[in-house]
Amino acid sequence: MSVTVPEGFAAGGVAVGLKSTGKPDVAVVVNRGPLKLGAAVFTSNRAKANPILWSQQVIQDGVVEAIVLNSGGANCFTGAFGFQTTHQTAERAAELLGVGPGDVLVCSTGLIGTGDEVFRAKVLEGVERAIAGATPEGGDDAARAIMTTDTVSKTSTFRGDGWTIGAMAKGAGMLAPGLATMLVVITTDAVLTAEEADAHLRAATRVSFDRLDSDGCMSTNDQVTLRVSGASGVNPDSDAFRTALHDVCLDLAGQLQADAEGASHDITIRVVGAASEDDAVEVGRSVARNNLFKAAIFGNDPNWGRVLAAIGTTQAAFDPYAVDVSFNGVRLCSAGAPDRPREEVDLAPRATDVLIDLKAGDAAATILTNDLTHDYVHENSAYSS
Amino acid sequence: MSVTVPEGFAAGGVAVGLKSTGKPDVAVVVNRGPLKLGAAVFTSNRAKANPILWSQQVIQDGVVEAIVLNSGGANCFTGAFGFQTTHQTAERAAELLGVGPGDVLVCSTGLIGTGDEVFRAKVLEGVERAIAGATPEGGDDAARAIMTTDTVSKTSTFRGDGWTIGAMAKGAGMLAPGLATMLVVITTDAVLTAEEADAHLRAATRVSFDRLDSDGCMSTNDQVTLRVSGASGVNPDSDAFRTALHDVCLDLAGQLQADAEGASHDITIRVVGAASEDDAVEVGRSVARNNLFKAAIFGNDPNWGRVLAAIGTTQAAFDPYAVDVSFNGVRLCSAGAPDRPREEVDLAPRATDVLIDLKAGDAAATILTNDLTHDYVHENSAYSS
Repeated sequence: MSVTVPEGFAAGGVAVGLKSTGKPDVAVVVNRGPLKLGAAVFTSNRAKANPILWSQQVIQDGVVEAIVLNSGGANCFTGAFGFQTTHQTAERAAELLGVGPGDVLVCSTGLIGTGDEVFRAKVLEGVERAIAGATPEGGDDAARAIMTTDTVSKTSTFRGDGWTIGAMAKGAGMLAPGLATMLVVITTDAVLTAEEADAHLRAATRVSFDRLDSDGCMSTNDQVTLRVSGASGVNPDSDAFRTALHDVCLDLAGQLQADAEGASHDITIRVVGAASEDDAVEVGRSVARNNLFKAAIFGNDPNWGRVLAAIGTTQAAFDPYAVDVSFNGVRLCSAGAPDRPREEVDLAPRATDVLIDLKAGDAAATILTNDLTHDYVHENSAYSS
Repeated sequence: MSVTVPEGFAAGGVAVGLKSTGKPDVAVVVNRGPLKLGAAVFTSNRAKANPILWSQQVIQDGVVEAIVLNSGGANCFTGAFGFQTTHQTAERAAELLGVGPGDVLVCSTGLIGTGDEVFRAKVLEGVERAIAGATPEGGDDAARAIMTTDTVSKTSTFRGDGWTIGAMAKGAGMLAPGLATMLVVITTDAVLTAEEADAHLRAATRVSFDRLDSDGCMSTNDQVTLRVSGASGVNPDSDAFRTALHDVCLDLAGQLQADAEGASHDITIRVVGAASEDDAVEVGRSVARNNLFKAAIFGNDPNWGRVLAAIGTTQAAFDPYAVDVSFNGVRLCSAGAPDRPREEVDLAPRATDVLIDLKAGDAAATILTNDLTHDYVHENSAYSS
C-alpha cells in the first residue's frame, strides 16, 4: 500500500478525465501527524514547470501537510495562468484540510504546454474528490493515479525496528528521466527533524535516482519528496534510517529502469578504479548516454569499442589504453587491446552488466540505463508527450 | 574529381578485401608540389586510434607528401601491433614515393579493434596498388575508397581566381559523428604557408564540421586534412581563401548530414539572441543531442516543449520563460507560453528548421543534426561497427 503503510498518512487517487484513457489522474497524500515535516529534491533543469516553482517555495520551511499530484498535463510553460492553477490547487486542498496553502506541495506530469481552463477545472475537481476519498489504505490508488507512460505502478516498503518507510514512484530517472517525468513520494512514521529528512533524502537520491539515466533527457517536472509523520514515536538510529531510505530509493530506481519506455535491456554500468567518485559518475554517464553503445546492446552486440569511444569524451583521469571493459563478466578489452572473444558474451538476457575498470584509483559509481530500441523511437515519435 | 581538381595532386583508390562487400577500401592522395604543406585537425576524443597518434606526429612540421586512408578497419585499440601497422603503412608509401615516412599521414576507419596480421597485409598491398595507380584524375576513386556506411561519396570543388580547392569526405560530423568516423581531405593549389593553412582550416572546421552533431557520439578516428601544392602559383587574398574553404566545408558538412545513417530529416538548429557564441553553440548542441526532440521530429511532431526541456539543461545565459521557439518559420512558443497552433507546422519535408531566440544578446550559431529514427537504431544494432 505504498505511501500509506507508515502510520499517520492517508492517500487517494481519482480519475477526472485529464488523461484520454480515463484512468486515474489526481492523487493526494495527506499527513495526519503528529509531525508535519517534509524535504524535497527538484529537477535541476532551468526550465521548471509551474508546480516546481510553487513547491520550491513550500518546502523552504520544512513543513508539509499534503501533496497533490496530477498526471495528464505538466502545467509547464503555461504562463501566469498556469502558475495560478498550481496556486489554486494548493489553496483548494488547504481549504478542505483546514491548513495553510503554503504547506501544500503540488506536482504535475504530462505534456509540456498543457494547462488551460479545462485542465484547471479538472485538477480542482480532482483535489476535492481525492481528499474526500483519502484513507489510510489509499496508497495503491495514489500510486496508480500518478502514472503516465508507466506500464505498472511502482511502490516500495521498508519495515524497520518499530518504524516504517513507504513509497511510490513514476517515470524513469532523476537527472535524466525519459519522456515520463519522475515523481516520487516517500513517507515515514519515524521521528526525524526536517533537517535530518533533507540530509537523508539528498544522500539517498544522489546515489539512486541521480544515477538512473535512461535516455539522457532531463525533465522539467521532476520531484522527489520525503514526508515525516513521526507517528511511530520512534527516533531511529541515523545510519539505520539512511541505509533503509537508500535501499528503498534503489529499489524504486530499479523498478523505474525495468519499466523504461520501450527498453529491452536493463543496463548496469559499474565504473571502478576511478580517481574520484565524480570521475566514476562522469564516465558511467558518458556510456549511459551514448546512442551507439545503447543501440549495440539492443542488438545484443557487446561492442566494447563504443564504450571506449564514449569514455574518451570525458575529462576523467585515466589512460584510455589501460582500461578494462567487461560485459556480463567477460573481459573483452584490456590494456588497450582486445581480450576474450566477444562470442563468450551472451547479451540475450534483459539484465546487462558492463564493468569499466579505469585503473586510476579506488573510487567507484554505478549508473543504470537502458538500451536504445525501436520501441523507444516509436513511443517518443508517434505521440505528442 | 574532388581532391585532384587542383593542380599538383594525384590520387587513387583500390579494393583489397578489407571490406566484406569487396568495394574499394584503400585510398591515397599524393602531392606532386611544388609546395608540400599540410595542416590537420583531429578528434578530441581521448581514445585515439593508432593512425591518429601517428598523424599527429607527422603534421607537426607542416610538411606532408602523401596521405593513405583505409576503410574496413579503424586500427583502434589494436595495441602496439596496430601502431606498427600504421608505421609500416607510412614507410611503404614513403619508400614507393621516395620521401620520408614522417611526411606520410595515415587515416583509418571501420570497426574498433580491427587491426590484425590480415588487416596489415591487405593495407600494405593497398598502399602499393593505390600509389601505382595514382593519377591526376583519380580523385573520385579515392573518394569512393574511403566510404564505410556512406551511401554516396561526398566531394566538393571551389574555383577561385586562378586557384582551386578540391575535397572529399566520408562519415558524419566532427565533434560528434555517427558510427561512421569522419574523414576529410581537402587539397588546394593556392600558395599558402603551413601556418596559414592551419589557421584557415581551424577557422573553417570550427563553424562547419564541429557543428555537425548527428548523434552525439564522437569517433576515435576523425581527421580533417588540408594539403597545399602551390601549383597555381597564385597567393590568394586571405579572406577570399578563408571564405572559399568555409563554403567547401559547409557544403561537405551538409552532404554528410544528408547521408547520416538512417535519418529522415536534416535538422538545422539556429540559435540567435545569445549572450555569446559559445552559449549559442551549447544551446544548439543540447537540442541536437536530445533523443526526445529527435524522436519527435522523426514523428513529424513540432514538440517545442522538448526543445525547452533540452536547453534548460545548459548553463547558457537566458531566461527559460522568455525564449521563442519556431519550427519551419512558425513560432510555437513565446514568452514562456504557447503561441501559434502546432497544426500550422508541416514537418513532412526532410529539411527542418528550428529557430531558438534566447533574447539574451546578439550572438548566434547553427548546429546541424538529424532525427532519431528506426533505421538509425537498426543500422547501429544489427551490425557490429
